Amino acid sequence: MDLHILEHRLKVTSIAKQGLFVFTHPLIKLIFLRSRTRCKFLSLTETPEDFTLVLDEEGFKELPCSEYLQVEDSMWLALNVVSNGHASSSSQAVGVTKIAKSVIAPLAEQHVSVFMLSTYQTDFILVREKDLSVVIDTLQEEFNIYREVGGECVPVPSQDVHNGFQKNGKEATKATVHPVLSPLNKFCVMSLDPDTLPTIATTLIDVLFYSSSCKDASHSSQDLDCVKFFSFSLIDGYISLVMDTEAQRQFPADLLFTSSSGELWRMVRIGGQPLGFDECGIVAQISQPLANSDISAYYISTFSFDHALVPEEDIDSVIDMLQEQRQMKLEV
Amino acid sequence: MDLHILEHRLKVTSIAKQGLFVFTHPLIKLIFLRSRTRCKFLSLTETPEDFTLVLDEEGFKELPCSEYLQVEDSMWLALNVVSNGHASSSSQAVGVTKIAKSVIAPLAEQHVSVFMLSTYQTDFILVREKDLSVVIDTLQEEFNIYREVGGECVPVPSQDVHNGFQKNGKEATKATVHPVLSPLNKFCVMSLDPDTLPTIATTLIDVLFYSSSCKDASHSSQDLDCVKFFSFSLIDGYISLVMDTEAQRQFPADLLFTSSSGELWRMVRIGGQPLGFDECGIVAQISQPLANSDISAYYISTFSFDHALVPEEDIDSVIDMLQEQRQMKLEV
Repeated sequence: MDLHILEHRLKVTSIAKQGLFVFTHPLIKLIFLRSRTRCKFLSLTETPEDFTLVLDEEGFKELPCSEYLQVEDSMWLALNVVSNGHASSSSQAVGVTKIAKSVIAPLAEQHVSVFMLSTYQTDFILVREKDLSVVIDTLQEEFNIYREVGGECVPVPSQDVHNGFQKNGKEATKATVHPVLSPLNKFCVMSLDPDTLPTIATTLIDVLFYSSSCKDASHSSQDLDCVKFFSFSLIDGYISLVMDTEAQRQFPADLLFTSSSGELWRMVRIGGQPLGFDECGIVAQISQPLANSDISAYYISTFSFDHALVPEEDIDSVIDMLQEQRQMKLEV
Repeated sequence: MDLHILEHRLKVTSIAKQGLFVFTHPLIKLIFLRSRTRCKFLSLTETPEDFTLVLDEEGFKELPCSEYLQVEDSMWLALNVVSNGHASSSSQAVGVTKIAKSVIAPLAEQHVSVFMLSTYQTDFILVREKDLSVVIDTLQEEFNIYREVGGECVPVPSQDVHNGFQKNGKEATKATVHPVLSPLNKFCVMSLDPDTLPTIATTLIDVLFYSSSCKDASHSSQDLDCVKFFSFSLIDGYISLVMDTEAQRQFPADLLFTSSSGELWRMVRIGGQPLGFDECGIVAQISQPLANSDISAYYISTFSFDHALVPEEDIDSVIDMLQEQRQMKLEV
């Protein structure tokens, strides 16, 4: 298996809901007017708390300074696992499940924080640029590692593990077990031909920029029957959309497409309190049991919380697994 | 002929070019998301100086406070001349020319300021609400006057001209003769089925919100070979667009339509210095000679300047006429 370290240098930011209007101008440019921007990596996710915006340096330059914008200090890099033509994994599962044991677990063991961004097309594992050397050390046994430089893939020479293993320097702490919630709405993970994006522009603009109200936000955070969650990403020319079936009904049925199985997904929302960016192992806690049971999962981190999407028929067993795991940890 | 006083209560505002991003959010809502707003009258015109935005109270409420927004103090009402089925005028000309003698000249004589807004469909004559009684006095001989109330047309009873004519109370001042300029670009006046507006959304958004740069502005104001001028209006469900042929090329040719003659228009831009809102008779100065020669004209006022559009084949004779008039006034 190959691991690519992508060229994008990414900022992870949060836009306060009441300040979105300040960012409508740059966001519409970044989403719809590709000829006017050099941004190649954009992900915008609405949750009840905020809009989490992950974008490359070119895109970040477009944002105005504003009291409504929070920016995580670090520069992040995106990693991407590429199966060499034939999938070597015996798993039929897709998403973060496929990389749970080979990437997520080893990085968690080395106390590397990851920010996950699953899309229709692939799964991006975001790590801090300053952690890159530990990441390469950790993953070079399992993967051929390439770094994208000027659009070319350059093999990363294997590092000698000099003076013993080069640890991250962080203390190993017992991972906190976070509460999980499972809202009742069902989600679909879809894509769209970028050439047809103008056709759904007004609908997408409506959903992204005009559908949330303060009422929604307070409602959703207190009552988790259904949760507001909408994610749009445009990365290297590929579009991915995650929305619930209610939002989906607003779009023309013939333009958005999903995998042939057309399955629906239920959400596991991780964290009772905002998770922050420093704790390690949160993705691993969720993805390990899924991998053990070979259950597919998309995984989308946002500024405050993490979100796993699992097939709707598996949601009960997943919740049981996670409750059991939580019980075991609490008892230890 | 009937004169309708429309129900819209209008504000005339100016958005500074560098502050447009603050207004992208409400403007996109007002233009594209009609189900989300009760605004029924919106006109947005870009000139080298600014964006002039005329909109009703419902629309005005959507605008955020901002240092980039100037608002003219008055409340304005829109008047509209309705031919009773068969055109009673012998003139074949369209636009402001048709109403030059019956509306524009009499109002100028009574020192009523007017703000003109020609669209593809009709010509709106905006007057200050406080001048309404003078307007009715002045025009009641020529017109059956109706006022729209709750969507119904109610005849306005003829006013007794008690104690002699109720003058506007302003001193009659000799009208200033303003310099006129004629940029070289050619314009078209077009419309669009509102149902197809989503189809051109990204193009229209691009042209309206992302096509001007500071370079454009300084360039255009110094060098009037070509002038930036783009006007979009959505009034009572009707769309009107005025753009030059360069902007037109960005839109799909099959959606925008114009009159069957498909003629192009040249611009006469009135004013060397910003005109302000208090001077009267500017529209009359331009429209009277056009009416005498039966030359069609659209007329669009903006926050700083006035703009007449005349058929391209008539531009030379119009400029000659206006220069001659200017010469005569200067000599008096």
